[in-house]
Amino acid sequence: MSAEPGTVRPGGRTARVRTAVLRAAGDVLAERGFAHLDLADVARRAEVGKTTVYRRWGSVTGLVADLLADMAEQSLPREETGSVLGDLRANASLVRWTLADARQGALFRAVIAAATCDERTAQALRRFYEVRVAEWAPCVEQGVARGELPPGTDAKAVVRAVSAPLYYELLTTGTAPDTPAAERAAQAAYAAAVAGVYVS
Amino acid sequence: MSAEPGTVRPGGRTARVRTAVLRAAGDVLAERGFAHLDLADVARRAEVGKTTVYRRWGSVTGLVADLLADMAEQSLPREETGSVLGDLRANASLVRWTLADARQGALFRAVIAAATCDERTAQALRRFYEVRVAEWAPCVEQGVARGELPPGTDAKAVVRAVSAPLYYELLTTGTAPDTPAAERAAQAAYAAAVAGVYVS
Repeated sequence: MSAEPGTVRPGGRTARVRTAVLRAAGDVLAERGFAHLDLADVARRAEVGKTTVYRRWGSVTGLVADLLADMAEQSLPREETGSVLGDLRANASLVRWTLADARQGALFRAVIAAATCDERTAQALRRFYEVRVAEWAPCVEQGVARGELPPGTDAKAVVRAVSAPLYYELLTTGTAPDTPAAERAAQAAYAAAVAGVYVS
Repeated sequence: MSAEPGTVRPGGRTARVRTAVLRAAGDVLAERGFAHLDLADVARRAEVGKTTVYRRWGSVTGLVADLLADMAEQSLPREETGSVLGDLRANASLVRWTLADARQGALFRAVIAAATCDERTAQALRRFYEVRVAEWAPCVEQGVARGELPPGTDAKAVVRAVSAPLYYELLTTGTAPDTPAAERAAQAAYAAAVAGVYVS
């Protein structure tokens, strides 16, 4: 039996330290941005020894990379609604909810900004999206198997197409996408997939 | 008779100073990012007096806001190909070309990153996209008038839908979108528009 993600963490002091440090790092990123992230400050906020933080994460970019790895591990599993449009709606709603959440939205904006000028953060961000896209791709594969979408549809491209307008809105206007925007993102990706745009 | 944008600039010393300063500011942003933008350094690179730069632009964010205003003024006018799909393809190709260009791509990434933590830059970025989207929206309006797209289609939403996957790819993977990505972006926005997804 596996627990719901986010409710239970593997025990032990090491795991508790990691949880506290990553929580503090996320708080600083969300409140003040990447430029203000400092290992000593994170250690203080997490009530963890500075030496432990330096030894384990080494640098600010090492800490952000681990935070993104943890976010990928902890993020919610995909939903199965029985139809590909329903599943894409569930995905759009989850992405919208994440970006509209004050802490999470600010955290994503900070990490995406940091990735533009730091290669290690960029790599960690790519891995984060690879994990999330791979989690949801089976929804599209099942839609193809059920005959809802054309054979040869690139499942990952469809999942990315749902996220794209929501991130684009957040990053170019600074406004978190709303519920109609999420609905439109799912409908647009679905319509394009039905039309065969993502057949590779 | 109006000249082609980018070929002729209004004359005079004031205009020449602005051109030199904005070019230097763009260079610094593209090469080193927003965090390294400094008015004294820009003045030196532009071979313009420091006092002039401080008096005219006041701050780094004032300079970036003016750079974005200039980029909106100088950017290419829309193309008319005779069909909405052709026009959306031309738009996708222009956006892809911009993001794939070493200097321009780096400049956009730097400004988008800066906008996540600076409200004045965020406002200037919003205005930039408003100008660009308004420039291209008539392509979609003409497509509606020609019966290629359903009545009530939100023209600006369609134009934004073309850009979204291209920016999303650049910002989440760090890789500039390629020609097939641009073609897919145009086809996807078109298919969704035909299906009525952008009818408001």
